[in-house]
Amino acid sequence: MGNVTIKDVANETGLSIATVSYAINGKKNLPPETVQKVQEAIKRLGYIKNYSASSLVSNTSHLIGVVIPQTEPGSAMVFENPFYSQILSSIEYHARLRGYHVIVSGTNADEKYFNLASQRNLDGVIVIGAYSEDFFNGLPSESIPVVLVDSYLQKDGYSQVKLDDVQGGYLATSYLLEHGHEKIGFLSGRRKEGGVSLNRYNGYEKAMNEAGKKIVNEWVMTCNVGFEAARKITRKIMGGLDITAVFCTADIMAVGVIRELNSMGIRVPEDISVMGFDNLNIANYCTPSLTTVGQDIFEKGKQAVEMLYKHLAEEEEKGIRKLSGGECILPLEIIERESVCRINA
Amino acid sequence: MGNVTIKDVANETGLSIATVSYAINGKKNLPPETVQKVQEAIKRLGYIKNYSASSLVSNTSHLIGVVIPQTEPGSAMVFENPFYSQILSSIEYHARLRGYHVIVSGTNADEKYFNLASQRNLDGVIVIGAYSEDFFNGLPSESIPVVLVDSYLQKDGYSQVKLDDVQGGYLATSYLLEHGHEKIGFLSGRRKEGGVSLNRYNGYEKAMNEAGKKIVNEWVMTCNVGFEAARKITRKIMGGLDITAVFCTADIMAVGVIRELNSMGIRVPEDISVMGFDNLNIANYCTPSLTTVGQDIFEKGKQAVEMLYKHLAEEEEKGIRKLSGGECILPLEIIERESVCRINA
Repeated sequence: MGNVTIKDVANETGLSIATVSYAINGKKNLPPETVQKVQEAIKRLGYIKNYSASSLVSNTSHLIGVVIPQTEPGSAMVFENPFYSQILSSIEYHARLRGYHVIVSGTNADEKYFNLASQRNLDGVIVIGAYSEDFFNGLPSESIPVVLVDSYLQKDGYSQVKLDDVQGGYLATSYLLEHGHEKIGFLSGRRKEGGVSLNRYNGYEKAMNEAGKKIVNEWVMTCNVGFEAARKITRKIMGGLDITAVFCTADIMAVGVIRELNSMGIRVPEDISVMGFDNLNIANYCTPSLTTVGQDIFEKGKQAVEMLYKHLAEEEEKGIRKLSGGECILPLEIIERESVCRINA
Repeated sequence: MGNVTIKDVANETGLSIATVSYAINGKKNLPPETVQKVQEAIKRLGYIKNYSASSLVSNTSHLIGVVIPQTEPGSAMVFENPFYSQILSSIEYHARLRGYHVIVSGTNADEKYFNLASQRNLDGVIVIGAYSEDFFNGLPSESIPVVLVDSYLQKDGYSQVKLDDVQGGYLATSYLLEHGHEKIGFLSGRRKEGGVSLNRYNGYEKAMNEAGKKIVNEWVMTCNVGFEAARKITRKIMGGLDITAVFCTADIMAVGVIRELNSMGIRVPEDISVMGFDNLNIANYCTPSLTTVGQDIFEKGKQAVEMLYKHLAEEEEKGIRKLSGGECILPLEIIERESVCRINA
């Protein structure tokens, strides 16, 4: 079955190889009856398109690369945070609807992603998260469309799908302020340039400033974006802080904080209110369930694919491989559950 | 950079194209100095192997397909259950170490996976979970090595990585019996032939029988393997059952059961003990934390890749594409946390 070639389809239909190729790849406006003739022959003969051969001829592979951060260089992908698996699930689904397959990879510290993109002749790349300047220098952005998810890197030709993270931090903090909290802690991953943590911090600071509340240095805490790291910092520091609420910039951290406060006998939300960010499935798994800043991760994955697809279609039309850039900012909303309560200031 | 060809490397080194190709693909025993010469030229010229071209010539693509179940046909992959993202993370990591890339996909209801495997010239396929007979008939097992993870399907040439699920069900139930429980519920997904649920049920039944305990029909419950489905069946049925413990065949279900019992004011473990299966990260996220039957998911993903790799190496050596089959059964152990307590029968 796998050995039927495009030539066999041409013989079967009496059409030229070029015409059959156009019909298969939808490249030219052929009469509908011609396309139907080819499709019927394909079905009858069991012809299967070979992407390796097709890739060499047309310079498209119908492959999209998705880059997921690693816990540390050369290690496994950071799927401990369900954000990544939820968005990958959406990307794979929407790519499939568009006829693309997805190569997923953590990046190798000792190999530029450029190599993978060239080796596989990827049609496009979706990069999730913030990486070092070095990594982006290794991306073949001039020849392949790149969509960045949750990165503030400004680079010619890169498209971006992200949130208004300043607004997100502002929303969360305002919600806590409205519930009477004034001593509000902040827990995030490293606040690096171009990353979401710094922007969410800026939103927190803005809300506190506008409300005339002072931020005490020790209230601003940093640890790895993970469950165990959040437990540890809670045990070591947070339990002893004079705060009534804490805003965690990732649900995975907030769930760790709640778990540890439970273990320490500190009641959530009566003693400390906890606010998350993401609205992952796990926000429902903990007791109390997590009040959080909700983003639509399924939509985020969809938009990343659609931006890529739009560029690929434009390229095809104009015969060039140059990306116009573009930005898609998705909305945020507070999801109220049980982990925040009102207090009298 | 991407346009340097193998011919350029040959010109640069003064070697034949065939020799350069052997050096790049490690096919023949060349003198070390020849290999080094080629490697230096590759570095100097910036040659990047093109897998599309290489795939057509050598009939290997260094691509592995990973099939993940979908929530329903034509929908997104079931990453709600973190088991899948944890094993995918391990598969991608170990494949990367072996120089393979991973195409991940939910299967399309209207397209046989055979097509993807042929189109992409996949070197091997790892299938996670149990699928319909139809799906497996569509797998090109005669030409491509297939490793099944968690499937009891017996088919010539398929390799398998799995658990002793009967033993797993037996372990869990025995643990509960040892803690004084006699009225033990059982909650799983659909117990279909060839799937893990049926085997875990058989282990539960065996332990109950050996202990001389009767299983009441209503104690055996079935719902989708998900958090919300488990909550729903807990609210509808479990709260009203005369049981002191329940064994859930997946942590994602057990976490849903605990969450709902918490909401209903039924204390875990004092009123009902809850036992899971998998030892996912989320077993720590709920309060109380989940006592469970632990499997090593990272090792499971590693073994799946290693079995595939072993076959590919054998094929290469013997020049044939025939799989010898084989089986790898990973160990299980009870992970004690807080969700099971001792009672006086």
